[in-house]
Amino acid sequence: MKYFKGSIFHTPIHGELIFIEEALIEVDEKGNIQSVFQPDDQHYQEKLEIAKTDVDFVELSKGQYFLPGFVDLHVHAPQWPQAGVALDEPLNHWLDECTFPLEAKYEDVDFAKRVYQDLVDHLLSRGTTTVLYFATAHLEASLALAKICGETGQRALVGKVVMDHPEMTPTYYRDQSAERALADTEQFIHEVQQMAPAYQQGIYPVITPRFVPSCTDESLAGLGELARQYDVHVQSHCSEGQWAHDHVIERFGKRDTEVLREFGLLTEKSVMAHCNFIDEHDGDIFIETGTAVAHCPISNAYFANGVLPVKHLKEQGVEMGLGTDISGGFSPSLWDNIKQAVMSSRMLEDGVDVTLPPSVRGVEASRISVIEAFSLATQGGGEALSLPIGVFAPGYTFDAQVLDMTAQANQITGYGVFNQPEAQLQKLLYLATPENIKQVWVQGQLVHHKS
Amino acid sequence: MKYFKGSIFHTPIHGELIFIEEALIEVDEKGNIQSVFQPDDQHYQEKLEIAKTDVDFVELSKGQYFLPGFVDLHVHAPQWPQAGVALDEPLNHWLDECTFPLEAKYEDVDFAKRVYQDLVDHLLSRGTTTVLYFATAHLEASLALAKICGETGQRALVGKVVMDHPEMTPTYYRDQSAERALADTEQFIHEVQQMAPAYQQGIYPVITPRFVPSCTDESLAGLGELARQYDVHVQSHCSEGQWAHDHVIERFGKRDTEVLREFGLLTEKSVMAHCNFIDEHDGDIFIETGTAVAHCPISNAYFANGVLPVKHLKEQGVEMGLGTDISGGFSPSLWDNIKQAVMSSRMLEDGVDVTLPPSVRGVEASRISVIEAFSLATQGGGEALSLPIGVFAPGYTFDAQVLDMTAQANQITGYGVFNQPEAQLQKLLYLATPENIKQVWVQGQLVHHKS
Ligand SMILES: [Zn+2]
Ligand SMILES: [Zn+2]
Repeated sequence: MKYFKGSIFHTPIHGELIFIEEALIEVDEKGNIQSVFQPDDQHYQEKLEIAKTDVDFVELSKGQYFLPGFVDLHVHAPQWPQAGVALDEPLNHWLDECTFPLEAKYEDVDFAKRVYQDLVDHLLSRGTTTVLYFATAHLEASLALAKICGETGQRALVGKVVMDHPEMTPTYYRDQSAERALADTEQFIHEVQQMAPAYQQGIYPVITPRFVPSCTDESLAGLGELARQYDVHVQSHCSEGQWAHDHVIERFGKRDTEVLREFGLLTEKSVMAHCNFIDEHDGDIFIETGTAVAHCPISNAYFANGVLPVKHLKEQGVEMGLGTDISGGFSPSLWDNIKQAVMSSRMLEDGVDVTLPPSVRGVEASRISVIEAFSLATQGGGEALSLPIGVFAPGYTFDAQVLDMTAQANQITGYGVFNQPEAQLQKLLYLATPENIKQVWVQGQLVHHKS
Repeated sequence: MKYFKGSIFHTPIHGELIFIEEALIEVDEKGNIQSVFQPDDQHYQEKLEIAKTDVDFVELSKGQYFLPGFVDLHVHAPQWPQAGVALDEPLNHWLDECTFPLEAKYEDVDFAKRVYQDLVDHLLSRGTTTVLYFATAHLEASLALAKICGETGQRALVGKVVMDHPEMTPTYYRDQSAERALADTEQFIHEVQQMAPAYQQGIYPVITPRFVPSCTDESLAGLGELARQYDVHVQSHCSEGQWAHDHVIERFGKRDTEVLREFGLLTEKSVMAHCNFIDEHDGDIFIETGTAVAHCPISNAYFANGVLPVKHLKEQGVEMGLGTDISGGFSPSLWDNIKQAVMSSRMLEDGVDVTLPPSVRGVEASRISVIEAFSLATQGGGEALSLPIGVFAPGYTFDAQVLDMTAQANQITGYGVFNQPEAQLQKLLYLATPENIKQVWVQGQLVHHKS
């Protein structure tokens, strides 16, 4: 057993903050939480005595807190080199002149390894302990990403991208055929499942049609069949922007969610990125199938033509977590996306165009609190992936970040006026920089620390 | 003479990026720029030889850049302890239960000094070299803020807040009378002007009616008269949200800009915060009077009920810079506000409510580029304050931040694919953290550095 002692913030239920002062967390040798003791628990003192005899005992000091590691539900790993670049360009230029030529470079596995290692390190240093990744259409580089995550200690779900539609993908970067795309996907599943046992934290293959427009009916159907056969995770984009949403309706005479469901791509283990244009009927399809939404608020400000109605979808019962969407979103940090999720929700509520009357320009009761956004980045992400992560409780893995409000480079204080626990968490969520992230743990293993 | 050698990014004209590779900047003993030499200039080599003999010669290495120091046009210094707190509350609760009780505490000058020193240090560490501050209604604590900025080396414009309207301010926190508010303001001007010569970088008094609703006609008129008499800067809030905008129209039968102009509060040295509800007519009043807008995009997401049409106002010719609006805005960083200015402008263009048709939900041609936002934080801020800051050119002060893309804690690279100068700046603007801000200089003096 390993022991961790310190105050905890988490949200076992969406939006409901729990603070445990001076918790003692007991973690087994596999990195799973066995118990979370509170000071007034019967066995607290006795366990604390045991903990203190352990040379590896981790004890936080005043002003430090354990937060669950963040779960990033949407990252295009190959796009990391262009994070922050060319966002002022129109989408088609951004894709055709920047993104696709960049992704095509991952044919070069050495280039891929350099980029992927750097990205994984950046994400860990921001407290992101689990990531759902799009790689590229290349089998070998996609496997390299899975392996790098495994070795570096990050929990990762990785997909080799499928994009075989001859009219919707560039000649220099596409799967040669649906058949080949399916064979590569199947091989990818096998090889990742083969490497997985070597890594305690979990490495998973993901079936990954880029989005409906870039895939043929044949590849979509085949991927749905693979999802059924292997019961692995599925990811794609759904109804992201006006163009994508309308395009699918024109091609199939049906909505994006309906098409994905018919191809067998919506399952308990499916995560769909963005979904800004879904309505209540689409939400019901997600609920029926157990599909989750990856909300990417920073990316959405650039490419989604509208704000996801997070509050209403959560009230409806749709599973949801947060994603950075590197590099449609520039930031590798879910900390940044938590803040943007709150701000975007308020802009949806209040509207943007002041020349319209208040009743027309916004959508009532759309705002989410920063605690709800924190939920999305933790418990919500775990629920979306159907993995026991994002909460400090028995049966969950010990994935944690240690936040230090006393960090020399960015001291955060409420000056005795705003020192209640919830105010402390709000200050952390709004004011922490990477300088305050002192340690990051995945499955009980230390994977990042500030010296 | 002091010499600084390194590559420069700046925008002498709004939105027009200039990159100078390996510039040599000559700064006189007063901290003003005498010359900016480029490698192909006649005297470059000769000057470089001289520079190299100087023990204080500052030479950047590869991956490091000089950016102008940022100009923050709107900070409520006393609200720093509540940055990030209670933003989920409704505005009236946020003001009555948090903000006003907090500001009232600055009667205690020792408390004020502790908070103000911490705030100034935080702002400098984010590269903010000039700040236009609201202090509180207290004379003594407001003077303490001016002095702390002077001693710490930050260029500061500080206002003792006037708020004397008996129906619109709390009993425990207001000026006792218009007469007293005016006398205190006049004394504040005198005392700041007396301490100013001790500080090379400049410390200025600012006439500061909180906003029209919180002031009586008598104090507004008196402050306008003081502005005329002393020719000092003026700051206030203007047409921030739906309530404030409508309230002024109800009270005076005129728009906020018209009322401010009639009271003599719009001058070449005036800066009005937010202004989200101004129209083209209001813009004309600002242009005629030389008044500038302090755009505070993060704060606006919480409290302004709409997005400032930055692009259209700039095209009209309105002077504008950026503000953090601590603590309506949670972040002490204009880096964060640059990004939010871009995102909010795109959300204004595309709209937020996807159930409305595209033509209705957004406002065409509203987006600004990240370079335009960078302009607002630098050259735009200087223009707003009518001070020679924000640009690297002879006659301007040497206010700079040294950005280091090779910082160990947050290395930023384009992997050889996105290494053109403009892409490098975009990456910095989107991905830099405080860890990349290696040095900050104000008026030729080093005021912050990373060890
Ligand atoms: Zn994506
Ligand atoms: Zn303000």
